[in-house]
Amino acid sequence: MANRIYRPGLKNVVALHSDISRADGKKGVLEYRGYNIHDLAQYSTYEECVFLLWHGRLPKKQELEKFSQDLAKRRELPPEIIELLYKLPRITHPMVVLRTAVSYLGSLDKKLQEITPDECLEKGKNLLAKMATIVAYYHRIREGKALIPPKKNFSHTDNFFWMLFGRKPNEIESKTMAIDFILHAEHTLNASTFVARIAASTQSDMYAGVVAATGTLFGPSHGGAAQKVMAMLRKIKGKNISKWVEMKLKKKERIMGFGHRVYAKTWDPRAKEYRKIAKKLDEIKKSPWIALSDKLVKAVQKRKPDLYPNVDFFTGSVYASLGIPDDFFINIFAIARIAGWVAHLREQYQENVLIRPLQEYTGPKNKKYPNR
Amino acid sequence: MANRIYRPGLKNVVALHSDISRADGKKGVLEYRGYNIHDLAQYSTYEECVFLLWHGRLPKKQELEKFSQDLAKRRELPPEIIELLYKLPRITHPMVVLRTAVSYLGSLDKKLQEITPDECLEKGKNLLAKMATIVAYYHRIREGKALIPPKKNFSHTDNFFWMLFGRKPNEIESKTMAIDFILHAEHTLNASTFVARIAASTQSDMYAGVVAATGTLFGPSHGGAAQKVMAMLRKIKGKNISKWVEMKLKKKERIMGFGHRVYAKTWDPRAKEYRKIAKKLDEIKKSPWIALSDKLVKAVQKRKPDLYPNVDFFTGSVYASLGIPDDFFINIFAIARIAGWVAHLREQYQENVLIRPLQEYTGPKNKKYPNR
Repeated sequence: MANRIYRPGLKNVVALHSDISRADGKKGVLEYRGYNIHDLAQYSTYEECVFLLWHGRLPKKQELEKFSQDLAKRRELPPEIIELLYKLPRITHPMVVLRTAVSYLGSLDKKLQEITPDECLEKGKNLLAKMATIVAYYHRIREGKALIPPKKNFSHTDNFFWMLFGRKPNEIESKTMAIDFILHAEHTLNASTFVARIAASTQSDMYAGVVAATGTLFGPSHGGAAQKVMAMLRKIKGKNISKWVEMKLKKKERIMGFGHRVYAKTWDPRAKEYRKIAKKLDEIKKSPWIALSDKLVKAVQKRKPDLYPNVDFFTGSVYASLGIPDDFFINIFAIARIAGWVAHLREQYQENVLIRPLQEYTGPKNKKYPNR
Repeated sequence: MANRIYRPGLKNVVALHSDISRADGKKGVLEYRGYNIHDLAQYSTYEECVFLLWHGRLPKKQELEKFSQDLAKRRELPPEIIELLYKLPRITHPMVVLRTAVSYLGSLDKKLQEITPDECLEKGKNLLAKMATIVAYYHRIREGKALIPPKKNFSHTDNFFWMLFGRKPNEIESKTMAIDFILHAEHTLNASTFVARIAASTQSDMYAGVVAATGTLFGPSHGGAAQKVMAMLRKIKGKNISKWVEMKLKKKERIMGFGHRVYAKTWDPRAKEYRKIAKKLDEIKKSPWIALSDKLVKAVQKRKPDLYPNVDFFTGSVYASLGIPDDFFINIFAIARIAGWVAHLREQYQENVLIRPLQEYTGPKNKKYPNR
């Protein structure tokens, strides 16, 4: 076949063009639709970023209000989903719960296939609003506590905090949650976004894409980094950090939360923002984890100034300080990233190019089936 | 970046090497692990093909017996899954039911991640055995009929027929079901197999892979062809077939079930086998659909001798003759293809190469966030 090339793991192959986000690994830049992540983290809200990612432009004031209200009124779950959350075994990983509940949500939708780009965003609103509630409700159920219904007058991220803990976040907690969701909303063509787009490229339903993405994000080498960082922090707490870092570097072992495929020799711009808000949060929380994270960054950078922490490095200690269990970390990633998944699904449905690479067969050929 | 290339939709890019199946589109050859699909359709059983796909060799007689029994004893569903099938709305597409039930099955598995290749096959047996039961049970529930528990002493495909209809298939029905499952068990790197492998490439759990694959297979341009063929047959029944074909070819419109991406200018080898068994089945069923299919093939080939029917062309009329509802066609594809998905998941876990292409950002850059 003409032009046939072999690229194991599709390394350095550009599979598609996209207008959603841009990551410049050399300069340490991340933009959503052209807007810098630093500006968005400082001045924007999660709702505004979702609108931006989905519509390609910032909303007007009235549009944003309408959009936020539209999301807020979709937060409550159908009784079937609440029942499902109570039924699922408590040993189930919260990501498996989220995957199953989203798939179930699809069963309640009467129009699955041949949806327009506008319908994609309508269904996207529903998914984005409800996925946060699924996660918060399952957390309450697993803790043996009563469910806390969503509050319509809270922002998406304040309301998520409210449903988890039953209290309104203070100003810094509120800003932390918003920044966390903004920083996790989108990041170019990663593995979960890619499977969502492949599902959409066969014209399958949106839920198929989001379920595939949720399942893929669960992979330890994709969405599981924050949890691994936290496990590392728990292990090294109380130890001599400089010595531990020296030992790890000597053995050439990986220090979790450092280095990033895209931002190889520079700061992950999200990590910079995350560090700032983590420090502010620490002033009120006095969490052992944030202080330990900071110590670890300094120790690593003293020995290896070109090894930078990534966004996952800080999320773990921030979530732990807020009282979120370790195995819920990936879920928070997922319920923020649904913004990007929906934007990519819409782009894929619009373009309608089937994504289909080839395999090369390397096994035996022409074997004789035995006479027996 | 060095070596960076753009290939929209990954066309003609070889993403990976695989030892599982080989499709030669020019010669019209399909082999599983080196064995020709014609031999397998004629002499093998579905269980033997599954063993072959998973272990890379044909089983010895005793191994096959043990393997078949091992599958048979896993057929019954946990009560939670049966309850789920009753709970899901009857309007739900059976593929959404299957996807949700498989995701739920994952919630009952205590060891999801970091599984060995052997564990992958153990879990694969469970999935393969139970997915057929999920489909048959949901069919019974939707028809308002009592569930028919699986029979341990029946083969996988006879038992599926039994659970659907409550009677033992006759010899030709039995052979039809076996050939159908064998022909659908595997077909190189298609979209559903690809997403399963990407999920596995992030080290996510097997259920994530199978759920992603099931969702992707649901896409009309992937697994939905047989249902579309059937819709076409229902539409043209009673019409002048030659005239209809002439009109379609004149308008350059696609005739469903003809042509295949891989087998472009030759017979899809699966279609050849399918046609043979369909003719035998027709002798006892006298189905209007099989006769109509045959007429259509002749009419098309008379006008366009290089336009060949694919495997999907015959499945619809065969299923319809057996009394299977149109919207269950993709499900049967899925419960046969689980054999190939598991083989690919195992191969992916063994190789452990992350599958990750790139995107090229084509939107606006460096926009100023408004002061407000």
